[in-house]
Amino acid sequence: MDNFPFIILVQPQLAENIGMTARAMMNCGLYNLRLVSPGQDHLSPKAVAASSGAEEILEQARIFNTTEEAIADLEQVYATTSRHRDQIKFVYTAEQAMQNFDTLCRQNIKCGILFGPERTGLQNDDISLADAIINIPLNPRHCSLNLSQAVLLVGYEFFKRRTDIPGTRFVTNGAEIAPKEKLFQFFSYLEKELDDCGNFKVDEKRPRMVRNLRNIFSRPQLTGQELDTLYGVINYLRRPHKN
Amino acid sequence: MDNFPFIILVQPQLAENIGMTARAMMNCGLYNLRLVSPGQDHLSPKAVAASSGAEEILEQARIFNTTEEAIADLEQVYATTSRHRDQIKFVYTAEQAMQNFDTLCRQNIKCGILFGPERTGLQNDDISLADAIINIPLNPRHCSLNLSQAVLLVGYEFFKRRTDIPGTRFVTNGAEIAPKEKLFQFFSYLEKELDDCGNFKVDEKRPRMVRNLRNIFSRPQLTGQELDTLYGVINYLRRPHKN
Repeated sequence: MDNFPFIILVQPQLAENIGMTARAMMNCGLYNLRLVSPGQDHLSPKAVAASSGAEEILEQARIFNTTEEAIADLEQVYATTSRHRDQIKFVYTAEQAMQNFDTLCRQNIKCGILFGPERTGLQNDDISLADAIINIPLNPRHCSLNLSQAVLLVGYEFFKRRTDIPGTRFVTNGAEIAPKEKLFQFFSYLEKELDDCGNFKVDEKRPRMVRNLRNIFSRPQLTGQELDTLYGVINYLRRPHKN
Repeated sequence: MDNFPFIILVQPQLAENIGMTARAMMNCGLYNLRLVSPGQDHLSPKAVAASSGAEEILEQARIFNTTEEAIADLEQVYATTSRHRDQIKFVYTAEQAMQNFDTLCRQNIKCGILFGPERTGLQNDDISLADAIINIPLNPRHCSLNLSQAVLLVGYEFFKRRTDIPGTRFVTNGAEIAPKEKLFQFFSYLEKELDDCGNFKVDEKRPRMVRNLRNIFSRPQLTGQELDTLYGVINYLRRPHKN
């Protein structure tokens, strides 16, 4: 069995931020939201508008009075904070933390991530309940994040471990890269046309120019259709000028 | 020499999103913002408030009429879009793209990232100007991101390559983990106290209980001061009950 981390907002102050958090969670495939005494209604029109289509997360969110109650049934809880405070704890980056949670969730261990109120962040007492601290690596000159942005970055790191991220792809939308043979035919055609119109005037420069042109048209990994487009361009250019 | 990617917002509609983008950029150590015919004033009170301390980025932002003008002096430009459209291009994840840009920026090649308007995203004509597409891996059910969140995720991937991210750290705030010798003294003390108060009643169970206790107090990697706290707790518990 498998599960996903719970996102726990401790005393979020603004409905808009709760909604934006739901949106960020949905972006990352996280659906379990818990709120500890929120300052505004998480189902208010402002919250729903800010969730931008993620109302189902708001509707299913569970409300608690205290952080203790909100994490009582969880087995591993990490607290997000940009300061380490004077607490003796393990500190993970968001990436390392979500590596751990990925493994734990696959073992069906219930994991949660605590996020503090917008202005103050998590209180020391809440942090002391957590198993470890998550510290998102950001510009030390300006590391205060909007609440939903913090949720997004942590959720993104979890999502990255849960999805088959394709390697670099050359997307041709179904069109096939032309086989080399077709490309070489195009080279011949282009070179013949250039010979005909006198482009290769200086014989000793010809081999170098030919190589340059072949490089130019090798780099884009042309499809068959794109080669046809280029044939058309050449033919068009070869027409007699109108003026 | 070294430089940093330019963030180019094409026709951003809301001042608030421009401000939040500046905030996200500052979070990631990016300071070069360009705007292509923004729908609202990037220095309006709304924008400045949303930038949450990143006004300097707004103040230094450069405004252009067209995407072509905004990227004219750049050498490599990637376009963010969640759809591939019908364009034949390389597609990178945010991580792969910022790996490339990290390398290119270190070679002093000027790089830029295009972000489209909030509702529609980048137009095909803008995408066709770019060298490649960035596709941020997100929940396919809900991959539409707020503009500033898209900037944040891409910027975050760049920042991660530019900062020495510490490995997992056990943060003790200067306190030193007690050497094993001190820990073993504590074990002896605890076990003697438990012997004295009759906790180890059944002799054959003693070795197992001792091992369990030693495991419990080995796991937290206690500091010297924390050991002192525990000595205090034991001593306090050993006092005669008041009632």
